[in-house]
Amino acid sequence: MQTTKIKQKKFKLVNGGVSAPKGFSSGGLHCGIRKEKPDLGWLVSATPADAFAVYTTNLFQAAPLKVTQKSLQSEQKLQAVLVNSGIANACTGERGLKDAYQMRAQMAGQLNLDPDHVAVLSTGLIGEFLPIKKVTDGISKIDPNNASPASFEKAILTTDTREKKIALQIEIDGKIVTIGGSAKGSGMINPNMATMLGLITTDASIEPQALNDQLKQLTDQTFNMITVDGDTSTNDAVLVMANHQVKNQPLNPDHPDWSLFTEALANVFQFLAKEIARDGEGATKLIEVQVEGAETEASARKILKSIIGSNLVKTAAHGADANWGRIITAIGYSGVALDPDQLMVKIGDQTVVEYGLPVPFDPLKAKVYLENEEVRIFVKVGESNQAAVGWGCDLSYQYIKINALYRT
Amino acid sequence: MQTTKIKQKKFKLVNGGVSAPKGFSSGGLHCGIRKEKPDLGWLVSATPADAFAVYTTNLFQAAPLKVTQKSLQSEQKLQAVLVNSGIANACTGERGLKDAYQMRAQMAGQLNLDPDHVAVLSTGLIGEFLPIKKVTDGISKIDPNNASPASFEKAILTTDTREKKIALQIEIDGKIVTIGGSAKGSGMINPNMATMLGLITTDASIEPQALNDQLKQLTDQTFNMITVDGDTSTNDAVLVMANHQVKNQPLNPDHPDWSLFTEALANVFQFLAKEIARDGEGATKLIEVQVEGAETEASARKILKSIIGSNLVKTAAHGADANWGRIITAIGYSGVALDPDQLMVKIGDQTVVEYGLPVPFDPLKAKVYLENEEVRIFVKVGESNQAAVGWGCDLSYQYIKINALYRT
Repeated sequence: MQTTKIKQKKFKLVNGGVSAPKGFSSGGLHCGIRKEKPDLGWLVSATPADAFAVYTTNLFQAAPLKVTQKSLQSEQKLQAVLVNSGIANACTGERGLKDAYQMRAQMAGQLNLDPDHVAVLSTGLIGEFLPIKKVTDGISKIDPNNASPASFEKAILTTDTREKKIALQIEIDGKIVTIGGSAKGSGMINPNMATMLGLITTDASIEPQALNDQLKQLTDQTFNMITVDGDTSTNDAVLVMANHQVKNQPLNPDHPDWSLFTEALANVFQFLAKEIARDGEGATKLIEVQVEGAETEASARKILKSIIGSNLVKTAAHGADANWGRIITAIGYSGVALDPDQLMVKIGDQTVVEYGLPVPFDPLKAKVYLENEEVRIFVKVGESNQAAVGWGCDLSYQYIKINALYRT
Repeated sequence: MQTTKIKQKKFKLVNGGVSAPKGFSSGGLHCGIRKEKPDLGWLVSATPADAFAVYTTNLFQAAPLKVTQKSLQSEQKLQAVLVNSGIANACTGERGLKDAYQMRAQMAGQLNLDPDHVAVLSTGLIGEFLPIKKVTDGISKIDPNNASPASFEKAILTTDTREKKIALQIEIDGKIVTIGGSAKGSGMINPNMATMLGLITTDASIEPQALNDQLKQLTDQTFNMITVDGDTSTNDAVLVMANHQVKNQPLNPDHPDWSLFTEALANVFQFLAKEIARDGEGATKLIEVQVEGAETEASARKILKSIIGSNLVKTAAHGADANWGRIITAIGYSGVALDPDQLMVKIGDQTVVEYGLPVPFDPLKAKVYLENEEVRIFVKVGESNQAAVGWGCDLSYQYIKINALYRT
């Protein structure tokens, strides 16, 4: 299975994910929520890091997110993140909230931290209570001096088939700065901060406001532009931490290396988002959709999400069938007013629709193209200059299997 | 496979579908668009019937719908409807429009009718041109004196696994009045007049405006409340025809039997809508969702469609898994503001969530219930009094198979 490519000339790829930047360490263990797999992961910074997060838009926001929000409200700093998989602690009312606070308190006690410097995240089944005794017993075994990044990466997964992690290095003020990221997410994936956890860390010195702005902007362009199944989960969050271990001049938009840093950061966000889409439940391929020529960015995104969310487009991609009629149909019901006669659609390099009408193309070539693990649909809807790009995956037998039998 | 039940005490079920009312006849033949199956259906009334239609909201409305709209604009009367399956004549530009007009002209000539009294409908693949010579040759073989309702019902189907038809009789002013209906639709089914054809006929005398009002209201409550896959097609239409062959006092809201008539008509609409959902591509069961306690009808419908459209709810239903977390999640991302603590969810007779929290229930009983061919999800979201009911189906391996291989 291929993964997303990174411009290696510009950025140095290094091993490790979220704990690659200086001062970060991570680990994971099995506490007993799940049968055998690691289910409790931790990420710790040697010093309090500036931290910001964005959360699911689902109305039934899970208890851990409420606790994490509370932590961040205090000083916008974090020193530890605790993640459990297996049970989402969502729709669990007062008891769930109490459990999440207990996880935070226990983790703070274990590491001798201010509880407001601890974030708690959960992912897994909705509507079940955590076996809190097992979780707190697990927390009491956490030892930040005994790091195991591989265990952390495993502990945060649910139906994911593989880890999603990346770390990049760039030079800022002549100093090596590292940005790391780890994510999980496979089902219940839909834009608007959904169905996934993303953790991004850096050892760079960066002004807090600039970091927060980047988090919001990049989340919007990456994690909010992926769709697996149109379902927006109750638990998801993207969290960014900067621990200033590298003593570069604090980064902000006036810093001469600002664009290099933000480009590297954007690469980390986009890499993780694409890896989540690629590893969508049952997916055999990543679908990238580009929309150009829209009157507003919002309408470009709306058209894009209509295409990438269409079960019929997704099944056609699965069958490697260049059934562009389904793409047109999805554009037509997106709710965006546009001139059908201006429409152009490309599947890979082949134009299949021009001025709203079918054009002859080589179906065999299209089929061979669509059998790739990464395919691209390009749509031009007019002469205006707003565009969007987003990612999804095909819809396969395996998706049905995973989701019809998830609890058995 | 069970079908939707009709109150047989109130309404007399009779054989036949759309051609059961007096003066209507129908037939079908194979003209060569499809390999072997009948692909050209016709419905004819002995006299011009008052006729009204609603059309897909998809921006890429197919050519035949434009032609049918043109016919209806003239006098709001129809005497014949021609339907082909196999090719949708959508996204076919000027040539497609010319083809649809030619079908209308040929049909009018064949039956010696005013072309404005002929409607044309197409369903099938998008973006291909009709083999118009085959179609016009087929039309030249149509003989209204040689009716074959069974062939008509077959000729309008695409991936449907069975015909969808019904006919009811009631007594108006002491005279027997018949209402008939036939529909097709299996994939690309989503609310807002989508992905389906519905034809409803009656021999009753009814005031045109009252008939048109009923069409709009009932379409909104039935055909617009079904979802198979969230894709709104380019071709769909519901068409109602009243040929006044029964000389009752013209029906209108002041007629003493008005409520009986509209109830019968509503039963025909709802029967056909539910049959379409039940026969959704790959479906093994019909899912009915009821939402109560919403502040507005629009918000009740929005919540309902979020649930019934969720791939995760649909796969859980397929696996007979009472995974109510997915129902809650779908409510939470519906975009409707509500108080989570007021939420109540029932699967069949069992309450699974009350005041926003899980309540103990018998999972085995729920599993047995969900293995039925017809299952119901009931949701109460507050104390207000707006409600909605709608229908969908489960998502199965078969859906993937049909849609990944549709053209091969």
